[in-house]
Amino acid sequence: MMKHNRPPRGLFITLEGGEGCGKSTQARLLGEYLRSQGHVTVETREPGGTPLAEKVRSVLLDRADEPVAPETEAFLVLAARRQHVTQVIEPALARGAIVLCDRFSDSTLAYQGYARGLNVPLLERLNRLATHAVTPHLTLLFDLPVATGLARRRSASETNRLDRESLRFHQKVRAGFLDLAKRHPARIKVIPSRASKETVARTVARIVAPILTRLHPADHQTATPRMTSRARQVRHALR
Amino acid sequence: MMKHNRPPRGLFITLEGGEGCGKSTQARLLGEYLRSQGHVTVETREPGGTPLAEKVRSVLLDRADEPVAPETEAFLVLAARRQHVTQVIEPALARGAIVLCDRFSDSTLAYQGYARGLNVPLLERLNRLATHAVTPHLTLLFDLPVATGLARRRSASETNRLDRESLRFHQKVRAGFLDLAKRHPARIKVIPSRASKETVARTVARIVAPILTRLHPADHQTATPRMTSRARQVRHALR
Repeated sequence: MMKHNRPPRGLFITLEGGEGCGKSTQARLLGEYLRSQGHVTVETREPGGTPLAEKVRSVLLDRADEPVAPETEAFLVLAARRQHVTQVIEPALARGAIVLCDRFSDSTLAYQGYARGLNVPLLERLNRLATHAVTPHLTLLFDLPVATGLARRRSASETNRLDRESLRFHQKVRAGFLDLAKRHPARIKVIPSRASKETVARTVARIVAPILTRLHPADHQTATPRMTSRARQVRHALR
Repeated sequence: MMKHNRPPRGLFITLEGGEGCGKSTQARLLGEYLRSQGHVTVETREPGGTPLAEKVRSVLLDRADEPVAPETEAFLVLAARRQHVTQVIEPALARGAIVLCDRFSDSTLAYQGYARGLNVPLLERLNRLATHAVTPHLTLLFDLPVATGLARRRSASETNRLDRESLRFHQKVRAGFLDLAKRHPARIKVIPSRASKETVARTVARIVAPILTRLHPADHQTATPRMTSRARQVRHALR
């Protein structure tokens, strides 16, 4: 690996979207792709990512008989996030790694804010408290009609408490994510995700390529030999 | 039991203080006393009080190797509190019970605010979010020099993660509680707790007696046959 005089700073990429949108698969594919290019990656997820945060995750997603209040959901994911940022994300970024995180702050806004109805500006403030202002350099939002995502999800794996919410709930989540993308166009890139996972993965690679230059500017020409016009656009927007 | 035309409304009494201050013992003694007077009581504690909240409690107090961030502590106790208020405290008050709660919102301010240094006004706002403005009618603050409390605690039971904090930490907790008592003199009553548990229990009974009249005004004369001047003072302050 090459050395830089400036300290390493890493790249923080989050993957967001509703149930069954394919973000976990895409996180894995993107990780493989980046490592094949010689990058150091840390793949992680929320809620979770540390032993404490994983315990919180199981409290949150268990199908218990006790109804879970919206505020409880929010506080639990925020607790898990604080641990995750302190214990995993910040140290990885300080080492110069590319952190790929399956769900992050935007999920709190979409699920507990837009869908559950908690105050979004307050949740944004709490996100800052949980993250100490660690913000993704890039957020990939995998967008899919709600019915398609839920059908995929229900056929693929055991469902958790959130999967079993109403269609209306998941529609609010999707609308919330899309609204966040409108509000943060430089950071959040919407990726239509009905296509095959290979096609979606190619879209992801195109979007990610230009921001890799932030990590190793000297490598830019070799790392992204053929930059598409869309990638140039994204890169411009990200600056 | 007598009937009233107005709906029952219950009484919410919280017991607060540092480690080893005796509040759990006093909660039990007060519960016994109140039941002996014909009252219906619900004894509970924080963090905890519901299956979900008890799971959060164990996450919070476990002696894990993972350092727990102050924000994580705050979010976890707030998550547990929201469940506790919704599932236990509000329904009990609606039935007209006297709820005795070992720790509540003031502990969050004292521990995560005054002692850990999180922003106290923000924590107050989050407490309102967690409690939906359910506020104790009376808070008994058991005050004790820190060294005395910790010595009691360490000899009495297995210590948890918070017990093992520095002396300085516990001093900040105590100072925080005393400051809250100054800020809310009508609600928070400071009880010097060096005396025997029987003596402290008598003080508690004297302080609690007058507010019982809120529950059953018709019973006032029999429930508090000999009201002390201190109790009158308290009662006046509570109105």
